[in-house]
Amino acid sequence: MGQILDGKIVAASLKEETAAEANKLRDNGVIPKLTIVRVGANPSDLSYERGALKRMEGCNIATEVKELPEDINQEDFIKALKEVNDDKTTHGILLFRPLPKQLDEEVIKYVIAPEKDVDCLSPTNVAKVMEGDKSGFAPCTPTAVMETLKYYNVDLKGAETVVLGRSMVVGKPVSMLLLGENATVTICHSRTKDLSSVTSKADVLVVGIGRAKMVTSEYVKEGAIVVDVGINVDENGKLCGDVDFDQCIEKASLITPVPGGVGSVTTSVLAKHVIKACKLQS
Amino acid sequence: MGQILDGKIVAASLKEETAAEANKLRDNGVIPKLTIVRVGANPSDLSYERGALKRMEGCNIATEVKELPEDINQEDFIKALKEVNDDKTTHGILLFRPLPKQLDEEVIKYVIAPEKDVDCLSPTNVAKVMEGDKSGFAPCTPTAVMETLKYYNVDLKGAETVVLGRSMVVGKPVSMLLLGENATVTICHSRTKDLSSVTSKADVLVVGIGRAKMVTSEYVKEGAIVVDVGINVDENGKLCGDVDFDQCIEKASLITPVPGGVGSVTTSVLAKHVIKACKLQS
Repeated sequence: MGQILDGKIVAASLKEETAAEANKLRDNGVIPKLTIVRVGANPSDLSYERGALKRMEGCNIATEVKELPEDINQEDFIKALKEVNDDKTTHGILLFRPLPKQLDEEVIKYVIAPEKDVDCLSPTNVAKVMEGDKSGFAPCTPTAVMETLKYYNVDLKGAETVVLGRSMVVGKPVSMLLLGENATVTICHSRTKDLSSVTSKADVLVVGIGRAKMVTSEYVKEGAIVVDVGINVDENGKLCGDVDFDQCIEKASLITPVPGGVGSVTTSVLAKHVIKACKLQS
Repeated sequence: MGQILDGKIVAASLKEETAAEANKLRDNGVIPKLTIVRVGANPSDLSYERGALKRMEGCNIATEVKELPEDINQEDFIKALKEVNDDKTTHGILLFRPLPKQLDEEVIKYVIAPEKDVDCLSPTNVAKVMEGDKSGFAPCTPTAVMETLKYYNVDLKGAETVVLGRSMVVGKPVSMLLLGENATVTICHSRTKDLSSVTSKADVLVVGIGRAKMVTSEYVKEGAIVVDVGINVDENGKLCGDVDFDQCIEKASLITPVPGGVGSVTTSVLAKHVIKACKLQS
């Protein structure tokens, strides 16, 4: 039976480190600040926002929330975003997505200032992730996967890692980050033939495919490390991951739960990115 | 014994298609044009340039070569590049790399106009490759791999593909392009443990690792398709790939030679990209 990779412990460790950095910056007269840009008041955005604000407070990072009307047009939105870009007191910008339909993310992603883009919306940061250039910002969730593996001293050099899912928020960027640690990386997905035979070769399996409890024990090698990025609601209305935790913990050596796994680490990564952005800008 | 994937045939087919498109544009009064920006007169640049100019001529694409002094400084280089960006008669720009040391590619890559950047220097195009957004330009060499596989009707859906090498000119972009065709993709490299056991699982093996004849028959599965992107000089001073062709053709079902494989296709891809750029701009 495997051990749990506890996201709360990883988050607490990152928080401590980040708060110390924030205090150093404050001692030098710089107040690190995250500005959240939110269009409308979607309940899931509000829920994430509460968590993020609390985390920033815990890390001594200042915050501001810019709530924009749900029916804002493209021109006004871009004007508002540029104001945040130009605001010298703001070091990091988090923009909730998806945006309402009248706003074109394909245009907006070029507007956000890359040096403040702490969750990797800008193509400049996407390209840096692919290039393995650490001067940019990878998205918070794949970075949280890496921080979790790092905290638990998982040696990725030459490891056979398998990423299930190829999205731009999880699968592709986490693959690039794993490559950067010298892992061998296989990217598989819904079109992969004989999926469980591919995933069950993994020393480290990262799952972000968006299907509740899809990964059952036959997908997992005995002794594997399993990182579950999925967040779904099961048939009883309870949160669950893409991995069937109860089954897979029997085979895995280490496994993240949902909730309490990678999801607990993302706001700490966000805080760390704000500090990094603040240092780049000051 | 395998069949040869003949790059010259692929190139000729692309050339025919591209020349027809160029003629249609010309009929509408638009002359598609590639401008090559070359700093100094490196023999390997000159050799590639001759091939590229000949190919463009064959495709009825106009060309211009802007040769800049080898000791040009960053400011003057950027000024010259911006002139080409702004030149309305130029639709595609090819910039030879690596640049001399006094020029900072990390700055210059943000200057080239993304819509004219036919060999994927700009981060905008790098990000599009990662996103699977086909409105941009992938680098010519990985695109040549894909065109070769397409010409020979290789079905990539669900195929087990392995990419050996993780460079930004071959390995990473070709992995993203293979994913875009719904292949399962494994990226392995010099740090991969037991490399031949990984590569010998591949239905399609793409090799771009820069080591002469490194891939011997034990790296290849019986009946695999092998695409060799390497260009090296062997102990007798002859061109060779990263694959030991004489050994591997015995096991492969289809295999590219070097020379005469993927390398023969790249200038045709370049021509195709110039036409695409021209259409985007007109």
